[in-house]
Amino acid sequence: MTQDADSFVEHRKLIIAGSGISGLSAAIYAARSNNEPLVLEGDEPGGQLTLTTEVDNYPGFPEGISGPELINNMKQQAERFGTEIRHGIIESVDASERPFTVTLKNGDVYTTDAIISASGASARTLGIPGEDDLMGYGLSTCATCDGAFFRDEKIMVIGGGDAAVEEANFLTKFASKVYLVHRREEFRAEDYWVDRLMEKVEADEIELMLNTEATELHGSPEEGVDHVTLVRHPEGHPTDKLDDPETEEFDFDVGAVFYAIGHTPNADYLEGTAVQRDDDGYIVAKGGSGGNQTATDEPGIFAAGDVVDYHYQQAATAGGMGVKAALDADDYLEELEREETKAATPAE
Amino acid sequence: MTQDADSFVEHRKLIIAGSGISGLSAAIYAARSNNEPLVLEGDEPGGQLTLTTEVDNYPGFPEGISGPELINNMKQQAERFGTEIRHGIIESVDASERPFTVTLKNGDVYTTDAIISASGASARTLGIPGEDDLMGYGLSTCATCDGAFFRDEKIMVIGGGDAAVEEANFLTKFASKVYLVHRREEFRAEDYWVDRLMEKVEADEIELMLNTEATELHGSPEEGVDHVTLVRHPEGHPTDKLDDPETEEFDFDVGAVFYAIGHTPNADYLEGTAVQRDDDGYIVAKGGSGGNQTATDEPGIFAAGDVVDYHYQQAATAGGMGVKAALDADDYLEELEREETKAATPAE
Repeated sequence: MTQDADSFVEHRKLIIAGSGISGLSAAIYAARSNNEPLVLEGDEPGGQLTLTTEVDNYPGFPEGISGPELINNMKQQAERFGTEIRHGIIESVDASERPFTVTLKNGDVYTTDAIISASGASARTLGIPGEDDLMGYGLSTCATCDGAFFRDEKIMVIGGGDAAVEEANFLTKFASKVYLVHRREEFRAEDYWVDRLMEKVEADEIELMLNTEATELHGSPEEGVDHVTLVRHPEGHPTDKLDDPETEEFDFDVGAVFYAIGHTPNADYLEGTAVQRDDDGYIVAKGGSGGNQTATDEPGIFAAGDVVDYHYQQAATAGGMGVKAALDADDYLEELEREETKAATPAE
Repeated sequence: MTQDADSFVEHRKLIIAGSGISGLSAAIYAARSNNEPLVLEGDEPGGQLTLTTEVDNYPGFPEGISGPELINNMKQQAERFGTEIRHGIIESVDASERPFTVTLKNGDVYTTDAIISASGASARTLGIPGEDDLMGYGLSTCATCDGAFFRDEKIMVIGGGDAAVEEANFLTKFASKVYLVHRREEFRAEDYWVDRLMEKVEADEIELMLNTEATELHGSPEEGVDHVTLVRHPEGHPTDKLDDPETEEFDFDVGAVFYAIGHTPNADYLEGTAVQRDDDGYIVAKGGSGGNQTATDEPGIFAAGDVVDYHYQQAATAGGMGVKAALDADDYLEELEREETKAATPAE
């Protein structure tokens, strides 16, 4: 275990990376199992759910609950049983020796017997010109956070899944009109949301721009977004068909752009460990039936929530997986303790 | 599709068997997906969770919530989006044709396009006096749920298999001492668990009460468990030998009693379908990563909660799996609808 004397903070039984639904659900159980978890909260405290105003489908709240309130409830619940929550972003994990050495971006170093990786996924961007300059100045990945800044303006939402349709609906509260840009004809969203969407389309609050993609954002940090360059092809995916004569390019004036095009898992800090990740960077957990479903290929590192699950991505599924991770980690820690006790007892 | 005209009730898109956490969580999502679910509520409405007075570890309720209240919240939430809940116990499912034919014990017959089997597992009980009054008030069938309520109390665990030995170990976290009552001399549990048990016995954290059985629980809902009447015979199975002069009866003071004599999954109604079950009767679901984790070997039948999960068995894990089942069933139903639309459209 190599560590600078000045940056070493302390040893922990269990570090949970992430303070979203899965991390906090894990913390509640881990604390109740006396594993004194330390939750490291990153730059998006509370995770994706805090970006949602109203959560109607987390089982247990008949009238719904706001995302921030649900997260706050879970934090209180985790702390009630002895969870400690600190700000910190993991830079790297050295799994070549036990205990693990965990180095944070600020230089702080911890050692820990087990890790639950619940570090979630972050909003994806398109990588088109104008994006870097305008992010936070008219371009946003969070309608809940930033929608109210664009009252009575034309707002463009880009994407075609639940998040995009939900955000488009939500933004009608503020926008003079919402323009939903989707590269295909069909939406991948829940029926519930597509129905709401169509009601708003009929009410002329939302306009669909299908088979369309953005290729450039224009504007300035001072003045915000001015207009967007778009391409359209009658069969969709126009940016794959820029040379096709049927692809048309046009400019469109809007006051703000919201991206809702998916997420990238936050697990790069596990590079160099035996934790297996898929082509998109999602952690591969053991799964299957019986126990240890959240185990990774690195014994002692468990994973839960959106950093694993690229499919369901619901509060309830992330929470369930967090609970499994805490129970799996508890089994691991108990076994570790037993082996240490055995090793410490001289043979008779 | 064979059916008596007088017993046929109606066709449904989706029937959910079971009104516990997993069934209701599935219903919330299924209703939001416009699948108009019918939840069939059996003889244990609300499932295992209603046996727990206080649920401290369901993420979202910092001060805890009572089992019945949590279930009731979920019911309201499911109904708010259009779920219908009726009493009914499925006798059999005919999966030889689509739609499925579902026959209830009372003779009612439904047809349905898809089924979510969330019919849970029932904890086995001893059927001794005091049991009914004290269940949820000092008597529990779930150490993980209720262990923390009995800090520094004497806790009795009844059983001799993996679950009993594991729960006895787990409860040492909380108990002043754990008393493990087993009707025989030998444990059926894995060596791993027996080794750990013996370590705790040596450390004086667990005391074994072998060849012993409980015959009566004493106490009150207000004060909880006060003491237990036990019988012991040197060769085991004392309740089979109550008249034997070597059988001795005695009372023993404890603050809580945990039954760990197994669960029985409720899935016999799926006999005759392609749904695969393990040796103990639990439904085998597909699992893995990505979508369709709750699929069974019978297309259109999905499974969630304790009827699948013999390991974690927590409210949050059952809920998460219910949500997955609803999303999987929705994918299946959408695909079915697309195929039907295609079949109904004459070829050009």
